[in-house]
Amino acid sequence: MSSIEQYAFGPFKIDPRQVFYSTPLSYALVNLRPLLPGNVLVCPRRDAVRFGDLTADETRDLWLTAQTVGTQLESYHKASSLAFAIQDGPQAGQTVPHVHIHIVPRKAASSEENDGNKDVKEKQKLDLDIQMKNRTMEEMAQEADEYRSLLSKI
Amino acid sequence: MSSIEQYAFGPFKIDPRQVFYSTPLSYALVNLRPLLPGNVLVCPRRDAVRFGDLTADETRDLWLTAQTVGTQLESYHKASSLAFAIQDGPQAGQTVPHVHIHIVPRKAASSEENDGNKDVKEKQKLDLDIQMKNRTMEEMAQEADEYRSLLSKI
Repeated sequence: MSSIEQYAFGPFKIDPRQVFYSTPLSYALVNLRPLLPGNVLVCPRRDAVRFGDLTADETRDLWLTAQTVGTQLESYHKASSLAFAIQDGPQAGQTVPHVHIHIVPRKAASSEENDGNKDVKEKQKLDLDIQMKNRTMEEMAQEADEYRSLLSKI
Repeated sequence: MSSIEQYAFGPFKIDPRQVFYSTPLSYALVNLRPLLPGNVLVCPRRDAVRFGDLTADETRDLWLTAQTVGTQLESYHKASSLAFAIQDGPQAGQTVPHVHIHIVPRKAASSEENDGNKDVKEKQKLDLDIQMKNRTMEEMAQEADEYRSLLSKI
């Protein structure tokens, strides 16, 4: 029995190839449909639906994990800011009933994106509800390998 | 000297009447320009700019405070979900250079809001960048009084 390779995510079982960092209480995975490059998720290992369901130890560990992962991914993606968000319950946009932090590295819009288009500001907004295309496991595994290597160095 | 009444928020000093809950490391305040009813902020007492600047103790305390405050305000506002967000750095929309968690109670759209308007989904999205009108200190103090009373009971 290999308990270390069991990652619950609500009704789903997460393939360990998607997971690039873990602690006894939390794990971080690459996203099936990233909003932007480096958009990853950090979850408690225990199958908890609401943020308020977490114990103090789980809450501490979850956010220290998010802090570590966010700092590394911001640097890796040459970004200068991070968005952290929990959609805690269906009316906040939660679609998978398992607590998860979205982390998204953010950077200044490139000159191409910033060409005077009046919708630039709109486009820069973080839309957690947007429907993206599913990636293949190979794409996700490759990204996770890079982050695993990155985080193994700290 | 009353250190308990000094609340730094980047370059601003927060009037203690806005603060409704505090711990040795964190405090919670009502918002000058709330996005929705019950939109409050939770900050570290120390004047830290980025989430990654917080110590493990500060991170733990900040999120346990957010958990406590969020749970109480969700119930108080008869909501069913919560949005938690940190805009960590200017490219993520941070406008005050002091770590702060936005908490926003969310509920199902009322029938009035849900009248078939195609923009309903758009309106329901949480836009942390939106410019709202400043409230008066009296309005904020009244809201903070209600939450202070609520949280004193737990």
